[in-house]
Amino acid sequence: MASWFQIPKNSPFSLANIPFGIISVQSASRVPAIAIGDHALNLNAFASSGGFSQLPAIQQHLHVFNQPTLNAFAALGRPVHRQVREYLQNVFRADTQFPQVLKDNAALQKSALVPLSQVTNHVPMQIGDYTDFYAGLNHAYNVGVLFRGPENALQPNYKHLPVAYHGRASSVVPSGTPLHRPNGQILANPAANPKLPTFSPCKKLDIELELACFISKPNDLGKPVSIDEAEDHIFGLVLMNDWSARDIQAWEYVPLGPFNAKNFGTTITPWVVLMDALEPFRAAGLEPGNRDSLLPYLREKRAENAYEIPLEVEITNQGGQPTVISHSNARNLLYSFPQMVAHHTITGCNLKTGDLLGSGTISGTEPQTEGSLLEQTNGKNPLKLADGSERLFLEDGDTVVLRGIAGTEGNYVGFGDCVGTILPPVSL
Amino acid sequence: MASWFQIPKNSPFSLANIPFGIISVQSASRVPAIAIGDHALNLNAFASSGGFSQLPAIQQHLHVFNQPTLNAFAALGRPVHRQVREYLQNVFRADTQFPQVLKDNAALQKSALVPLSQVTNHVPMQIGDYTDFYAGLNHAYNVGVLFRGPENALQPNYKHLPVAYHGRASSVVPSGTPLHRPNGQILANPAANPKLPTFSPCKKLDIELELACFISKPNDLGKPVSIDEAEDHIFGLVLMNDWSARDIQAWEYVPLGPFNAKNFGTTITPWVVLMDALEPFRAAGLEPGNRDSLLPYLREKRAENAYEIPLEVEITNQGGQPTVISHSNARNLLYSFPQMVAHHTITGCNLKTGDLLGSGTISGTEPQTEGSLLEQTNGKNPLKLADGSERLFLEDGDTVVLRGIAGTEGNYVGFGDCVGTILPPVSL
Repeated sequence: MASWFQIPKNSPFSLANIPFGIISVQSASRVPAIAIGDHALNLNAFASSGGFSQLPAIQQHLHVFNQPTLNAFAALGRPVHRQVREYLQNVFRADTQFPQVLKDNAALQKSALVPLSQVTNHVPMQIGDYTDFYAGLNHAYNVGVLFRGPENALQPNYKHLPVAYHGRASSVVPSGTPLHRPNGQILANPAANPKLPTFSPCKKLDIELELACFISKPNDLGKPVSIDEAEDHIFGLVLMNDWSARDIQAWEYVPLGPFNAKNFGTTITPWVVLMDALEPFRAAGLEPGNRDSLLPYLREKRAENAYEIPLEVEITNQGGQPTVISHSNARNLLYSFPQMVAHHTITGCNLKTGDLLGSGTISGTEPQTEGSLLEQTNGKNPLKLADGSERLFLEDGDTVVLRGIAGTEGNYVGFGDCVGTILPPVSL
Repeated sequence: MASWFQIPKNSPFSLANIPFGIISVQSASRVPAIAIGDHALNLNAFASSGGFSQLPAIQQHLHVFNQPTLNAFAALGRPVHRQVREYLQNVFRADTQFPQVLKDNAALQKSALVPLSQVTNHVPMQIGDYTDFYAGLNHAYNVGVLFRGPENALQPNYKHLPVAYHGRASSVVPSGTPLHRPNGQILANPAANPKLPTFSPCKKLDIELELACFISKPNDLGKPVSIDEAEDHIFGLVLMNDWSARDIQAWEYVPLGPFNAKNFGTTITPWVVLMDALEPFRAAGLEPGNRDSLLPYLREKRAENAYEIPLEVEITNQGGQPTVISHSNARNLLYSFPQMVAHHTITGCNLKTGDLLGSGTISGTEPQTEGSLLEQTNGKNPLKLADGSERLFLEDGDTVVLRGIAGTEGNYVGFGDCVGTILPPVSL
């Protein structure tokens, strides 16, 4: 798709994408926007100046573009998201049917198009609950080998249900937000008896490369979402870094799972890539043959229940030379987001608009395809960065960038960078 | 404290209490209220008719009483809650300083006082995140004995930190809301190899007797709350039934903890009892001597960090004869709510106004003091109900009532009943 608007060929936000987010410019209010090339289109300004005049179906819903979150827009449901996205593609196409809307409207271009460099991004949805799954088979296997050996690496339930735990919603932050290294209890000497923890800054601070989906259509308590309807409850995807304090986790996690090890921050990309934008990249996930052995409530009609999205992890210390330490792919998931939704709600649990569901860490099977440092170094075998330094885990001043981009030059569908920098621990 | 208003002597909502909630009457909007004897005082009606005219400090904040949740009121902080509670006690006292406000104001009595029988109660706060702790030492020990034997009943971390997991906020419901028995994956034959789950309604549906606190004052990400300041971040307490599907839990919980076993519903009492109302009932918790061995960030100044609140669990099937199956006490906690807050935030995790923190199951050490059926029956030794029937776990049609009431006749400080009825599973 060619555009009359200048969209850099390497932009993750090509005309094939049209992701939605929440922006502010200087001290103005938060408003919905889309990303298009190097710009954001302020949908509040666009809508209030008649930008949607050629889309009759949205007229009664224009208030959703005058909100500080995307919840109201997401709640309108997938058919509306599809119409709006296709309309905006049309408006930006070289052969647009509606040149009067924006192409030939210099005033609206000036008031509604803002360079991304001038934009502040925010968490796009008011998140109710955040759930993190564990659907990255290779990650679960790699970590299982470290803890229990290859024979018992995967727990018996792993290939029957998407394992998950409830996460912390309040500390989900947008890309670019620095985070302090957490303090907490760690067991400096696990062999000692009795086991006595010490209070310390985390010494094994790690990343987790994940995708996550936002929920659009809610379901009522007591009304499970069937696997066939599940995708229509999903608004779109973001990239996510589920920062993890491995030493805090190792001490605290029995018997109820990770808590403080994960509650200090989770970073997401601020642009929500709609499911429709990802449709061309559908591909078989891991072990599609496993599908028939699943209980019926998890069986999807399509074997192509994953996406071909190359992913990468980069580390840079204090503005130095960046090192891409890992290349993975979104295909490395055993369960799809619709399966996660169906499983989450099978008990009758209600999902609400804005809920966030993480995939779990997405690792490949080869060296340098791991989605966490734990898998890549095992805390023993240091990783060499381009600046000559070594890492077992993250150091203060490290900036981690996750990237995910599908498609080909000129038509990329990407998430943009998921960036976080580690600050020194807070002194108490 | 004597009142000019008729307050039944056995009411949990004596003048010594003054709990806050959110009510609606018929189809009217949700509004803040207090419970006083058999009545609710509609604080929106009270405030808008000059009921707070004798409390200058609240004048600039009267909008908090015109909200559908208590979040805005809670966010005002403990000094304001204290002033409002003491003012309302004064208004209702026999020797009130302000007889013109309500005692001698028949019109306001008529418009603002509503019999509780005509009131619908709602979840009082917009809950951001819900965290469930595991601070009931006897429960952790009892369950540990069942799973690992008495030698290893408590995990090594247990006496060093308040173990917790993130819970599901969306399915927190007010007392009286019926819940369907959840469906899910269970392992019918755990001894089989390979382990193959079946899809089934839960067959081991259980209760958990808990207290929970709501957060009032939030803290910013990266700013831990110190143990000395923690209590001022707590709005008040409610009773909570953390319904648990033991068979779903047993299959799903490795390695990340309970998920579907708990996400289908959590019932709370709708009236928030303020920390000030509970102050007269302070008492030493379990193992106060353990305090000095805690890491400094968890050490409280006062050894009396628990409350003397008798608790009970009652089961009735379909309107039959009720059976009180358990008597426990809120003193059966190893960690206090301020310790939970300090631990939760030590990593920098931000708590928000309206967040809910559960205590974990509160069990005693004697027979019939257990806070769950699992502990009382071990799934093997049936419990006999007054109607002659037996229970290992809950049956469809069972109504469970939790009660907690402190103090003495005429001055009770209680939570009211925490009621939930189990409906048959949803057919898919």
